[in-house]
Amino acid sequence: MNADIKRERENATFDIEKMTHILDGSPEKTKRRREIESLVFNDPDFDEEDPNFLSRSERYDQAVRKSAQMILKMREFGIADPEEIYHYKSCVHPDRPSPLDLHLAMFLPTLLNQAAPEQMDQFFMPAWNLSIIGTYAQTEMGHGTHLRGLETTSTYDPATQEFVLNSPTVSSIKWWPGGLGKSSNHAIVLAQLHTLGRCHGLHAFIVPIRDMETHQPLPGIVVGDIGPKFGFNEVDNGFLKLENVRVPRENMLMKYAKVEPDGVYVKPPSDKLTYGTMVFVRSMIVGESYRALAKACTIAIRYSAVRHQSELRPGEPEPQIMDYQTQQYKLFPLLASAYAFAFVGQYMTQTYHRISGDISQGDFSQLPELHALSAGLKAFTTWEANFGIEVCRMSCGGHGYSRSSALPDIYVEFTPTCTYEGENTVMMLQTARYLVKSFRQARAGQRLSGIVSYLNEPQDRRLQPQAAGARPALVDVNDLSSLVAVYRLRAAALVEMAAKNIQQELQRRASQEEAWNNSAIDLVRASDAHCHYVVVKIFTEKLAEVRDPAVHSVLSTLALLYALNGITRNSGDFLLAGLLSVPQVLQISVRIKELLSQLRLNAVSLVDAFDIHDKKLNSVLGRYDGNVYEHMFQWARRSPLNATEVHDSFHKYLKPLRSKL
Amino acid sequence: MNADIKRERENATFDIEKMTHILDGSPEKTKRRREIESLVFNDPDFDEEDPNFLSRSERYDQAVRKSAQMILKMREFGIADPEEIYHYKSCVHPDRPSPLDLHLAMFLPTLLNQAAPEQMDQFFMPAWNLSIIGTYAQTEMGHGTHLRGLETTSTYDPATQEFVLNSPTVSSIKWWPGGLGKSSNHAIVLAQLHTLGRCHGLHAFIVPIRDMETHQPLPGIVVGDIGPKFGFNEVDNGFLKLENVRVPRENMLMKYAKVEPDGVYVKPPSDKLTYGTMVFVRSMIVGESYRALAKACTIAIRYSAVRHQSELRPGEPEPQIMDYQTQQYKLFPLLASAYAFAFVGQYMTQTYHRISGDISQGDFSQLPELHALSAGLKAFTTWEANFGIEVCRMSCGGHGYSRSSALPDIYVEFTPTCTYEGENTVMMLQTARYLVKSFRQARAGQRLSGIVSYLNEPQDRRLQPQAAGARPALVDVNDLSSLVAVYRLRAAALVEMAAKNIQQELQRRASQEEAWNNSAIDLVRASDAHCHYVVVKIFTEKLAEVRDPAVHSVLSTLALLYALNGITRNSGDFLLAGLLSVPQVLQISVRIKELLSQLRLNAVSLVDAFDIHDKKLNSVLGRYDGNVYEHMFQWARRSPLNATEVHDSFHKYLKPLRSKL
Repeated sequence: MNADIKRERENATFDIEKMTHILDGSPEKTKRRREIESLVFNDPDFDEEDPNFLSRSERYDQAVRKSAQMILKMREFGIADPEEIYHYKSCVHPDRPSPLDLHLAMFLPTLLNQAAPEQMDQFFMPAWNLSIIGTYAQTEMGHGTHLRGLETTSTYDPATQEFVLNSPTVSSIKWWPGGLGKSSNHAIVLAQLHTLGRCHGLHAFIVPIRDMETHQPLPGIVVGDIGPKFGFNEVDNGFLKLENVRVPRENMLMKYAKVEPDGVYVKPPSDKLTYGTMVFVRSMIVGESYRALAKACTIAIRYSAVRHQSELRPGEPEPQIMDYQTQQYKLFPLLASAYAFAFVGQYMTQTYHRISGDISQGDFSQLPELHALSAGLKAFTTWEANFGIEVCRMSCGGHGYSRSSALPDIYVEFTPTCTYEGENTVMMLQTARYLVKSFRQARAGQRLSGIVSYLNEPQDRRLQPQAAGARPALVDVNDLSSLVAVYRLRAAALVEMAAKNIQQELQRRASQEEAWNNSAIDLVRASDAHCHYVVVKIFTEKLAEVRDPAVHSVLSTLALLYALNGITRNSGDFLLAGLLSVPQVLQISVRIKELLSQLRLNAVSLVDAFDIHDKKLNSVLGRYDGNVYEHMFQWARRSPLNATEVHDSFHKYLKPLRSKL
Repeated sequence: MNADIKRERENATFDIEKMTHILDGSPEKTKRRREIESLVFNDPDFDEEDPNFLSRSERYDQAVRKSAQMILKMREFGIADPEEIYHYKSCVHPDRPSPLDLHLAMFLPTLLNQAAPEQMDQFFMPAWNLSIIGTYAQTEMGHGTHLRGLETTSTYDPATQEFVLNSPTVSSIKWWPGGLGKSSNHAIVLAQLHTLGRCHGLHAFIVPIRDMETHQPLPGIVVGDIGPKFGFNEVDNGFLKLENVRVPRENMLMKYAKVEPDGVYVKPPSDKLTYGTMVFVRSMIVGESYRALAKACTIAIRYSAVRHQSELRPGEPEPQIMDYQTQQYKLFPLLASAYAFAFVGQYMTQTYHRISGDISQGDFSQLPELHALSAGLKAFTTWEANFGIEVCRMSCGGHGYSRSSALPDIYVEFTPTCTYEGENTVMMLQTARYLVKSFRQARAGQRLSGIVSYLNEPQDRRLQPQAAGARPALVDVNDLSSLVAVYRLRAAALVEMAAKNIQQELQRRASQEEAWNNSAIDLVRASDAHCHYVVVKIFTEKLAEVRDPAVHSVLSTLALLYALNGITRNSGDFLLAGLLSVPQVLQISVRIKELLSQLRLNAVSLVDAFDIHDKKLNSVLGRYDGNVYEHMFQWARRSPLNATEVHDSFHKYLKPLRSKL
């Protein structure tokens, strides 16, 4: 092991293993996760060539091979618990998406949730056994977030008792669904249902798209891959153009809504039933923000312990780059964010399970809050992690730009989370809608409960600059509960400001919608402040659960850094609202530097605690043993351009050039 | 042409062509640029396959082919002016780097600048005629920014009158030089010169690395490609390990320093002579920031005019996404930055040429200021553009993630500018060193001139919060010269704060170096504020040159948005230093919204004025005609995964799986 990184570990002030248990949820979960990891990483059937050395087609091929293996092995080992499936899959395709993701995560669950019993009989077992391979085709080339805008039509023909599906325009071509391009032989197609001359909105239809034996596209089906992307090279995101494609009436998913044989439409009993899945997926993405940022921090911090550069003191050897204050200032706040998001992810999962219990009892009362929370936190954490991964990459200098660092891959695989499952700005505005509604209810005399209860407090003096003298004395910048309070007051101030802005717009203009759009910047800002408050609050509350004093101490330092760094990055908000004084903000800058140098000692151990296996990290810069340069050299020599000493282009172009010049 | 985008153009309030002339520098320059573009774009020899559809090796092959063609054609057409070469090259390889870049931009110029006359005779013409193809091998695996840390050795052997070059460690292997991996047969190697038992620091040596006929690596040379990267797929960035490689004494570049045949070392007359190139390259990068951001804005803004989504008013058709305030708030400040950086780039080029005139007269007096300015502005503009490109990409929703948008390519080709030619944080600290030195000189009674003369002003009351009442009344948030002044005061306040912080550290601790490192966060912040001031100032001064009232009007709106947006993004600084009052900051937020809706009308025309040819943009989302969806479909169908209807993996893995489950 590299001597520098060994020394870092010896200096840790806390028990790394105990921290890992906290991050996993319990010692048992850590144990089980590691068992699953060793199942995969010791299995030669899952050996792979580094995808960075392969062409797109080879990457797809390798991913399909591994997915097929994975399904066989999971059945063999009886891995069926969703969390265990998740761990297993994320080792087989180390944090990469795979061509069968949508089959497993959307096609099968949609059948389970929306197929009528006789449809289950027909489709489920073939799909379970991968004879039917399906995807979920919703997004169209011209239509994403706004579902009502989708153009694909499905028109019922009572004469034949069939639906006729069509893509009436170029912009209506289904676009983006994973696994649609080459892998799937079926798709659940979302289309506007027309029957007896009326449109009844979006419904789901099972559409066979390829021949079961030859895999050739069926008549009327134009299907293929949408071409290379920033990342997701393993996935055949596809297009699907439907030209008078007929499917039997039984292929509409009819557990809730129905079309009778004569064409009569029967409405579903409730429209909230599919709401839960969306919330669940967004909660999961918060966890992804943690994992992606944890990986990036692991790589950048370990490398910063190993890399020596420049000089701090003339004549002395080059210091570890982690000794530079600017490097600490780039990385340690991100490390704190990674820990924060780990706990936010745990909180979201727990909350989801608690509330889904209520929902299954028919109690939907907490769903709006959960919906608003999951939307906002999905946006907040993915934006922050997205930005943070790139900071980590650039903090590794040139080597961060090499694919051997794994940082480019982490970024390109993660960045779509800012867009999919609800575009982040749209998500922030959804949360804002809930906040403004709650604010108005509080003003109208209702007593709010739950996470927005802070909007109950009287807001009067908050935005008055003259109040600046009075309030700030209350804030102790070293006390987390005091900081939670100041974040809460900031959120309240910004929600109030956005709400007032809407009021002012309404006084000047006619429509509610224009007022909303003309306040959108303020609304996003308010949502952001709300989410920031929630994250600081959850991190602080988590500390109360931690018994071990050494672990508690280092986590408290991280939480404090998280809270204080958020204040300096948004100091205008706190000063504007009179929540902090100028001397306090200056004091916070000083305090942050102290926290950085405190964390310096534990930084490597704090990323070790994420316990990300080298095979999962797949980064020469982030290796546990710190032997970076030897492995970078070995990796480079395997580059396809080094397959021959002399590239053909020399003989084809460069040598002949001599005679022409 | 798409009807939406046509209407946008009809609404323009200014003459687009006149704006293009301003951006290019003059009508003549616009004309000549277009002539060169049409030379390339109408030449079938330069037709290419979209690199996104090719493997790494095919991309390299295509780039070498085009580079060879390019050199023949440029000689044929007599294109020799550096600016014209730049335009020609940037059309042949549309804003992509090429394998011969370092030969043309580093190897040949280094010979010109540092070779003695007899060396010129030996090496220059073969290199000019591409019989010798060379690169510049400085960076090592373990050493980048800090040149003194380089480990490669070149030891003079008087017995044979040769230098013996070695890579003594893994970390000393040359790493990253462009064109080193496969293309070059020579390298200028930077190595620590040892002669007669003493080390004389870094010197440059011409080292043959491949056989001139067979192109096989020579004995003692281990050379190859460093493997795939985030971008730069066309370039064979390489490694080079030297094992007792002997070159004749004449292969040391000896225009300045020399080693006599007996091994006696002769020092160079000055060490400032290579300083100018570095400054020049950094100035050029400021221009790259403009061009990259201009491309990203062109794509995102045109697409935002074409794309319709969701609803602003119930029942009405989906609006153009550019009508959303949040979309305007993402894109228009970046558009303003692109214009700002265009003018900063022009300013840097002019300043460079002015000062190099002085330098060639032996007057180095202005070099430190230029050095500090180019370092800081390189970092400031590349960080901002880097961040901005990704905002543009994500503002295009899912389609921004497709390689067909070109946005991923723009990002991966641009982002290394934050690291190469001086890592950005290091650059900011270099500028800070100049600022702090200037500040101390001013405090010691010296009268500063040039761009730092603002540090002459008395600073006393600036950081006192109680002064907040007095000063802000002076600022008119609608007046650019008033805003330049407030940016200047912010910079002065932050330079002073950083300098004081160093003083305080010195009072507490022993060493100057520690004090510097413990103030590094403040120093970077001060540099950033200084650069921000310079950009606002240059943009404002540019307006005085613009005669056309309509063009002047829209540019003023952009400049105002640039200045005000910078204030809201850093409002804490302005409030902390008592430069703006709370009501003023709130007023600025309101004003920004007004400016956004003013710019809405001209947004498409403002990106049209960048005049980026469709073949250079290479983006289906950013097409001039706005016919996005049809071309996205056509592009996708050419994806290599669509070469066959059925991918082999179906027969290999998916179909056999059925029988096993």
